[in-house]
Amino acid sequence: MIRPAELIERKRDGGELAPEELNELMLAYARDEVPDYQLAALCMAIYFRGLNSAETYALTEAMIATGDTVDLHSALGRKVVDKHSTGGVGDKTSIAVGPIVAACGVPFAKMSGRGLGHTGGTLDKLESIPGFRVELSTDEFVAQVRDAGMAIIGASANLVPADKKLYALRDVTATVDNYSLIAASIMSKKIAGGADAIVIDAKVGDGAFMKSLDDARALAEAMLDLGARARREVVCLLTDMDQPLGSAVGNALEIREAIATVKGEGPADFLELVLAACSRLLAVSDLGIDEYEGRARAMQAIADGSAFTAYERWIDGQGGDPAEDALPSAPVVRELLSERSGYVSALGAVAVGQAALHLGAGRRTKDDLIDHAVGVLCLRKRGDRVAAGEPLAEIHAATDAAADEAAQELAAAFTIADEPPPQRPVVLDVLS
Amino acid sequence: MIRPAELIERKRDGGELAPEELNELMLAYARDEVPDYQLAALCMAIYFRGLNSAETYALTEAMIATGDTVDLHSALGRKVVDKHSTGGVGDKTSIAVGPIVAACGVPFAKMSGRGLGHTGGTLDKLESIPGFRVELSTDEFVAQVRDAGMAIIGASANLVPADKKLYALRDVTATVDNYSLIAASIMSKKIAGGADAIVIDAKVGDGAFMKSLDDARALAEAMLDLGARARREVVCLLTDMDQPLGSAVGNALEIREAIATVKGEGPADFLELVLAACSRLLAVSDLGIDEYEGRARAMQAIADGSAFTAYERWIDGQGGDPAEDALPSAPVVRELLSERSGYVSALGAVAVGQAALHLGAGRRTKDDLIDHAVGVLCLRKRGDRVAAGEPLAEIHAATDAAADEAAQELAAAFTIADEPPPQRPVVLDVLS
Repeated sequence: MIRPAELIERKRDGGELAPEELNELMLAYARDEVPDYQLAALCMAIYFRGLNSAETYALTEAMIATGDTVDLHSALGRKVVDKHSTGGVGDKTSIAVGPIVAACGVPFAKMSGRGLGHTGGTLDKLESIPGFRVELSTDEFVAQVRDAGMAIIGASANLVPADKKLYALRDVTATVDNYSLIAASIMSKKIAGGADAIVIDAKVGDGAFMKSLDDARALAEAMLDLGARARREVVCLLTDMDQPLGSAVGNALEIREAIATVKGEGPADFLELVLAACSRLLAVSDLGIDEYEGRARAMQAIADGSAFTAYERWIDGQGGDPAEDALPSAPVVRELLSERSGYVSALGAVAVGQAALHLGAGRRTKDDLIDHAVGVLCLRKRGDRVAAGEPLAEIHAATDAAADEAAQELAAAFTIADEPPPQRPVVLDVLS
Repeated sequence: MIRPAELIERKRDGGELAPEELNELMLAYARDEVPDYQLAALCMAIYFRGLNSAETYALTEAMIATGDTVDLHSALGRKVVDKHSTGGVGDKTSIAVGPIVAACGVPFAKMSGRGLGHTGGTLDKLESIPGFRVELSTDEFVAQVRDAGMAIIGASANLVPADKKLYALRDVTATVDNYSLIAASIMSKKIAGGADAIVIDAKVGDGAFMKSLDDARALAEAMLDLGARARREVVCLLTDMDQPLGSAVGNALEIREAIATVKGEGPADFLELVLAACSRLLAVSDLGIDEYEGRARAMQAIADGSAFTAYERWIDGQGGDPAEDALPSAPVVRELLSERSGYVSALGAVAVGQAALHLGAGRRTKDDLIDHAVGVLCLRKRGDRVAAGEPLAEIHAATDAAADEAAQELAAAFTIADEPPPQRPVVLDVLS
């Protein structure tokens, strides 16, 4: 039997933890046989000492072993692809990517999470759609992917339960920010969720966990390594999160933007990221094509309407109403006007996310209710020219008072300068 | 209201915690309003980042504020001295030092603890004495010091309760070994216990927390700094714990050795440490003498029998029987003979402590019962010459089987070489 204090001390002193030790520890932790305080001390020791590649993989496997796994490959008889984002402001990428990939004939299956703080969760966004069911049984999940070509559902309570427990603990003990622990947390769920190939969108910048490209690269390397050890194909996109993605921040607003994008009418930066993700997903699928061909097919699916048809089939299959006018609208819509002329040199992702959060689009604590109708449309983004009196953003609020407050916060999120800022692409790097 | 996760993060990133933050944190922790897991993460962050001098003092004060304090100075109308040891094998120093200091006319008041693992606690040793009461009320404590000149009692449950809780947590989260946390733990109890001047015996070596002289010096500096900030006179002796102190290891055996030492018949290394401690205690007392005069008076008290009289008065005052033959004896006494001739070049303190522990002299877990009669007498110490077949040690055991086991462990504790080892004094350094 392991002695947790001994493992903590060894890691504290820079030593290595063996796979069987991590396995026993995680099983005991999931069964409440090892207390939170020992895991908290261990996570802080890991924060300072790190985990090597073998330890990170052992932790990932150990966490997976605490719960159920899904074998989509066997159930569907072919290769299944998945996409994951490390989380950002205005990130509705999966909601546009899934239908495009499905329209190209590749099964897309994703288990997703809810949002907390200034980044929204995909499930919360999908719940803007009247009737949409995020909780499917494993059988329903498999049937939906088979029949509608795609599914996005909430992870079952017993998918990597040790990760759920550990993540909640790390959140309140300042031990979230460690590449190995983040990589193990993400990859344990992706591997347990059963996809054969995974495209990961690792966000970089002000609004993301990873503030610098170097940090994001280190995280990506850790995830690629875990993928290789678990024999899953993994591609990592490192993408910009210094400003919100696309225009819309807020649940129903983001669904509208995803629909527009599937129809070819989305904002340029968001479309670029969607195409980058789709091209890589198709390239790792069983279609046997490369990313250039993947990009061409994705653009074709948008252009010929098959992507939107796939969207409708997906939403309908999960019980939702795919019509855009079924989505809720906010009673108060107000423009934020620019006080001066110039170029938007910065648009703080966190500040916009916080403004949306305060409008009611997100949760401050786990028990908060979400107002799906509210949010922000960023009408100008970094590099855009604006004249004094022209709108910078559109605020969708529940009340005038909430709109007033959001206007103040949003005004501070925009920096207007005389010269345009240096260009920064949305996709900063791709690792595989 | 403080947010503990924010304090953890700040410390993790090398920042500083403010006195009022530490104060609020410790009060909330003592009231169970902040969970153990957050303190565990904080202690591990402190392990890596350290606490500066101001933070260490603030933590000490914050812990004191969670419980009661004793003002001996006001109660007795004069300066009171105390002595503390960081803990070692065979450390019965206070039991000999107290009566000698009291015989010299200086009030000696000490709150002490119980032992866990390979080091014994002073209270456990004193409980070898039939009838001896370690639990006195504060009024009884003050009366005993006034009437008998000295008292050694168990700390009340409400003396620095935050330290009790935090120490138990650190013990199981590998966060004990940090100078600042150790210094704050020791000094919070000494300051709350009410002594004006404190002599600290910081053990160095194999059998101690501090393995090197540099480590012990760092701990001593931290305690001197806390003493200065709290306006208490503190002297730190750095003393050898590479081998057990004196000959006796085990509760009643150690009481016998303390009595012998008070009568001038103790082992040389132990007597040397006792005189070093007494001379400093008398020098920081209100007698207005220096340590050389202090040493002379201590030797005089031993020689003229007044120290033993003070011992009898003390034990009697706390309800115990001071007669040596009232102490329990073990049924099995066996000699460990040397297999070869030579010099004892090393005598492992931990190994001897473990042998005594396994004989039943100590506790492996908090709930173990102690056999006060059992233990080990080290008849040869480092540097001593021994011929093949001569005794190295005497084992006092409850059963033959236990004696067999201890003999094996003890044999491994002795290293015999052809040449004598370099001399190493018991008092390595003195800091004040």
